[in-house]
Amino acid sequence: MAEKITPRSEDYSRWYTDVVQRAELADYAPVKGCMVIRPYGYALWENIQEALDRRFKATGHENAYFPLFIPQSFIQKEAEHVKGFSPELAVVTHGGGKPLEEPLIVRPTSETVIGHMYAQWVRSWRDLPILINQWCNVVRWEKRPRLFLRTTEFLWQEGHTAHATAEEAQEETLRMLEVYADFAETDAAIPVIKGRKSESEKFAGAVTSYTIEAMMGNKWALQSGTSHFLGQNFAKAFDIKYLDRDNELQYCWTTSWGVSTRMVGAVIMAHGDDQGLILPPKLAPIQVIIVPIWTSEEEREQVLAAIKGIAEGFGEALRYKVDDREEYSPGWKFNEWEMRGVPLRVEIGPRDVAEGQAVLARRDTGEKVIVAQDGLAQRINGLLEDIQRSLFQRAKRFLEENSYELEDYEEFKRIIEGEGGFIYAYWCGSGECEAAIKEDTKATIRCLPFDQEVAIGRCIYCGKEAREKAVFARAY
Amino acid sequence: MAEKITPRSEDYSRWYTDVVQRAELADYAPVKGCMVIRPYGYALWENIQEALDRRFKATGHENAYFPLFIPQSFIQKEAEHVKGFSPELAVVTHGGGKPLEEPLIVRPTSETVIGHMYAQWVRSWRDLPILINQWCNVVRWEKRPRLFLRTTEFLWQEGHTAHATAEEAQEETLRMLEVYADFAETDAAIPVIKGRKSESEKFAGAVTSYTIEAMMGNKWALQSGTSHFLGQNFAKAFDIKYLDRDNELQYCWTTSWGVSTRMVGAVIMAHGDDQGLILPPKLAPIQVIIVPIWTSEEEREQVLAAIKGIAEGFGEALRYKVDDREEYSPGWKFNEWEMRGVPLRVEIGPRDVAEGQAVLARRDTGEKVIVAQDGLAQRINGLLEDIQRSLFQRAKRFLEENSYELEDYEEFKRIIEGEGGFIYAYWCGSGECEAAIKEDTKATIRCLPFDQEVAIGRCIYCGKEAREKAVFARAY
Repeated sequence: MAEKITPRSEDYSRWYTDVVQRAELADYAPVKGCMVIRPYGYALWENIQEALDRRFKATGHENAYFPLFIPQSFIQKEAEHVKGFSPELAVVTHGGGKPLEEPLIVRPTSETVIGHMYAQWVRSWRDLPILINQWCNVVRWEKRPRLFLRTTEFLWQEGHTAHATAEEAQEETLRMLEVYADFAETDAAIPVIKGRKSESEKFAGAVTSYTIEAMMGNKWALQSGTSHFLGQNFAKAFDIKYLDRDNELQYCWTTSWGVSTRMVGAVIMAHGDDQGLILPPKLAPIQVIIVPIWTSEEEREQVLAAIKGIAEGFGEALRYKVDDREEYSPGWKFNEWEMRGVPLRVEIGPRDVAEGQAVLARRDTGEKVIVAQDGLAQRINGLLEDIQRSLFQRAKRFLEENSYELEDYEEFKRIIEGEGGFIYAYWCGSGECEAAIKEDTKATIRCLPFDQEVAIGRCIYCGKEAREKAVFARAY
Repeated sequence: MAEKITPRSEDYSRWYTDVVQRAELADYAPVKGCMVIRPYGYALWENIQEALDRRFKATGHENAYFPLFIPQSFIQKEAEHVKGFSPELAVVTHGGGKPLEEPLIVRPTSETVIGHMYAQWVRSWRDLPILINQWCNVVRWEKRPRLFLRTTEFLWQEGHTAHATAEEAQEETLRMLEVYADFAETDAAIPVIKGRKSESEKFAGAVTSYTIEAMMGNKWALQSGTSHFLGQNFAKAFDIKYLDRDNELQYCWTTSWGVSTRMVGAVIMAHGDDQGLILPPKLAPIQVIIVPIWTSEEEREQVLAAIKGIAEGFGEALRYKVDDREEYSPGWKFNEWEMRGVPLRVEIGPRDVAEGQAVLARRDTGEKVIVAQDGLAQRINGLLEDIQRSLFQRAKRFLEENSYELEDYEEFKRIIEGEGGFIYAYWCGSGECEAAIKEDTKATIRCLPFDQEVAIGRCIYCGKEAREKAVFARAY
């Protein structure tokens, strides 16, 4: 733990892996492409889950659980879906000691099996909408895995809803994108760009896919959550029909939306520095680490007694921990908890006890202040709020400083291949231009951002008339 | 929903399936042996999870997540383990469009892969104990599936701990059995018998398995949670070693313990009646259902306004719902919420509004009382506590009334084949006697209960000296 990690400027990718492993967020599993989420990483995920689940329930959704295994024939029922997912499937061919008659797919996503169930549950307009979410594991075979970002198995939530009208389904799709954006900005302190995916980047089987895109510390983009308007594609493939108020049979309109353990990667890369993780207080498993300082057994007892007294004033909501281990020095502990991204450190030594004070050190700025023990809980809560706000502001400034509005393709190439960043540029909408840009620069269209004026310009690649700007960037 | 379900006395097994489906707890999945847990059933599971997770954290455990896929060679490393699980495995042979070099097992339980990871994480006595739990899905091929009780895929938690000494591991094993028993009795209102499993019934790979056994409404037993002392079996198979304080390399001692979605089945069968589910208030997704009664639009508005006022007095902790649907009659709603086992119903009509009163109806006893709206929240909380207590007392009485201490094998057979129940009888400890009794009566040894005097008797089957009583019963 005392060894240094690779600096970001030296090798961003190694820095990332170093942080994940040294902070004990995750580890490689014995099966290639899979990971083990260690307790500290899982506690972070639990806080992400809690923050999202609360929002899902507040918007009327219920949780349920659908099976891990999907009959192979189901995947084949929606033409685009099978095309998109076939190369990534894990297939169970034997069960209970025998070859199976029909192979089973380990779910890569659950539109198909959930569509099959909805077809049985929906009879009339009274049964609609169905608003269900599930927390589960999914499997998509990965050739180049990266911890949290791309793993063969990952954890996520997938919401699946069915509606009577296209309008309602569209509203739901956008409502959940807003929920994701609110979570990312408020809880994860990560500013995001909301927008629509291009045809080539949309979900296999969707009519329209929406996304929130975030900028990582190396100026690459990370797709952090997606919400899909599925039209009647899955309703037709799985026969999800209802009797409307005029007693006529209609196909439903469906949506799906998901956020995964990738979000942990986003938190690491949006905020971390060369000392390790920096966690936003709202998601941090430990918000405050208290490090007692002593040089004798007598001092130790005195300091720990004072800390006990202080901690009694902390509310139940504050997630704090006292690191009273004897086998490590205070300096070692400072480094360790910095590596683990704990937002605030409280140091208390014999002199602090004598003078009724404590030292507070912020992880984000490194600032240290000496404050009175009186009113410490309030002071801490205030600082945590400030850290949460500052992290968001810092990330937002970084995003803005590294975003460009360009009209010239040479400049586009120079920036993408040089300092990197997000480039807003007019795009004519053709897949050829999109593919050519990707081929040239490895930059992809992250989204067609909602936040843009209605105007006409010239495609950055072909120069033809274009009615919309796209955000281009290299991406995970 | 208005149709009657099969009475328990007519066909207990059909009653069970009827309740699960009519109360919308679960449904059959398209893949044989798998199930879909519907929102109402999943909400019940979430409450079970919350009640257990709180206890795990209070006893020092952290959650983590290990991979779904286990290399086939891992399963084969512990001799007993592979023997026990081989017939139940689901095998992935293809991934990413290609045959795999080594097939992957979909985890039936995770001792092996977790053992592999612990071997890497543990270096010295300072790293011990490791106290980790995981919430996940597991797969064990089932030939005769039953919703919640035996399904090919099920949800559970599995705790896995590693310790420096046998004593510590033994203590942990028994501590977690107590946690399970406390949860079952306090939250699920199900009295349980704690004891040791016989050799033939223990976990494949354990030195000793402990269990909590509950009695269902048909007097069959349901194993409701197990805790295993694994000795050094998995530590040796996976090389989990640590340097002790004398700097000598030692194998760890490990434990594992689990509770699954079977617990939902236990709740259904321990408390349900011919009207459907009866849920203990501590686990009920909806504790109080409020049914407004009206005959005109004016009355409707008046009654709903009164309910709104009353509900404002309910604390945040109370889980209630107002069923104000217009398309169903009050009588239909009464039946529906009885079917779904809501512990308490509040009826409010125009006369109740006028007189400042409400009607309370208990699901467990059917009792109805008219009470003042003043102080209603308190009255409701008191009644919910009473229902929780009564359900436990009723189940305990049922368990006691259907338990027998027997010395005569003919009587044993008569009871098992007749009225059914739990039979406490001396057993010599031989697998032959155990197997013969099972062959004769389909009754198995549920456990060697902790709660028995040290005494010597004669084996109920062979008549030889026996030092311990076993509990025999037919079981799920």
